[in-house]
Amino acid sequence: MISKAKIKLINSLKSKKYREKYKLFVVEGEKSIQDLLQAGMKAVSVFALSNIIEHFNDIDCELAEVSSTEMKKISFLKTPGNSLALFEQSKNLFEESFKSSFVLVLDNVQDPGNLGTIIRVADWFGVQDIVCSDDSADIYNPKVVQASMGSIARVKVYYTNLSEYLQNTKTEYTVYGSFMEGNPIYETDFQEKKIVVMGNEGKGISSDIEKLIDEKISIPRFTHKSKGPESLNVAMATGIILSEIKRKK
Amino acid sequence: MISKAKIKLINSLKSKKYREKYKLFVVEGEKSIQDLLQAGMKAVSVFALSNIIEHFNDIDCELAEVSSTEMKKISFLKTPGNSLALFEQSKNLFEESFKSSFVLVLDNVQDPGNLGTIIRVADWFGVQDIVCSDDSADIYNPKVVQASMGSIARVKVYYTNLSEYLQNTKTEYTVYGSFMEGNPIYETDFQEKKIVVMGNEGKGISSDIEKLIDEKISIPRFTHKSKGPESLNVAMATGIILSEIKRKK
Repeated sequence: MISKAKIKLINSLKSKKYREKYKLFVVEGEKSIQDLLQAGMKAVSVFALSNIIEHFNDIDCELAEVSSTEMKKISFLKTPGNSLALFEQSKNLFEESFKSSFVLVLDNVQDPGNLGTIIRVADWFGVQDIVCSDDSADIYNPKVVQASMGSIARVKVYYTNLSEYLQNTKTEYTVYGSFMEGNPIYETDFQEKKIVVMGNEGKGISSDIEKLIDEKISIPRFTHKSKGPESLNVAMATGIILSEIKRKK
Repeated sequence: MISKAKIKLINSLKSKKYREKYKLFVVEGEKSIQDLLQAGMKAVSVFALSNIIEHFNDIDCELAEVSSTEMKKISFLKTPGNSLALFEQSKNLFEESFKSSFVLVLDNVQDPGNLGTIIRVADWFGVQDIVCSDDSADIYNPKVVQASMGSIARVKVYYTNLSEYLQNTKTEYTVYGSFMEGNPIYETDFQEKKIVVMGNEGKGISSDIEKLIDEKISIPRFTHKSKGPESLNVAMATGIILSEIKRKK
């Protein structure tokens, strides 16, 4: 059973405003929930169908059995899963990122699916810190959580004023930015302490941020510009750049 | 104006059965339509809102103005665009692929978004031939068309019985397959004539196909297996592998 108040609370978490108010977010599906728990994130409530509720018996939080009709009322998915959990938002200390030798920076990445995919591939390549402009997609957006496949538990994502952040870090880090025209990544000699900036899906890196880039890099295109695709998806480009940087390490 | 029969025809093209019957597929949005036309694909009808219909004046096919109410009836998108076109499916001659020195093979890639993204990144890296197992997503699925961003006009996609195909090509090509465990791509010496096989989203490469692989390759993971993500998305993995192969060329 689930109370009307709880249903209302969960539904309110579709919106960033209420996620920030309650410092909570929604995770759906046993696999993702277990991943986040295993990575040390704190659940406050788990709602599960009768057939799998016992899988959550060990959890130290509210555990409630719900019917599939109730699950439909709380799920954000077209096809609701067998379980849904409320997790506490983690409090990452921004200062921690300054200790990293490699920080990924996202300038206004808007699509939640892209952000989730970027977090997942960053996790794969061992990049632990992502700094986003304040206008980027919200890490606790349900679509980001879904696409990141549990990686949001391991990769720290910070939101800040990017211009200020880059001005403060510039002396210590070499700042690379991904552009359509730039030094081919295969020939780039990446420095030990580095920041890599990826831009918005349609507009790329904004002009304010462009001024703070030390070196423009690009993924070589192997078809003629007039005949090939205009660009690569930003998540794809991020994965390819991370692979190339890690290969060289 | 658009006739009821035409609306019915367009809606039927959501299903592969009717796409194959009529040898047509739907493309939405001016950008994608123009991309495909420019790449030499043949439109049979374009339906456009009054404000942009003149952009299509030069096209040699049926051109009809539709109201936004009518557009809603024919569009497959939640937010319909300003134009929608019916294109003829292209007839790729499978034999052509045997001339390529590099063929990408997809073993049961199911998600249309993944297939579209793979076609786009293949196009970027100049890979012109993709051979899919018969049970892979259909290239003319509207979501594939959308995600490929016009690249379906340039990359040739074939469907066939993969076991037979690989048995026939094995003597001429070195067949690489992407696995969780395999030779790190950074250390792989890719042969001139090569086939790279990517597997299904959940299950990877099927056991029948695995037997036909000459060399297993994998994208190194830079986090510990028990702590990092389980896998990379197949489209992402394809992009990273293509980048690495092209870098070495």
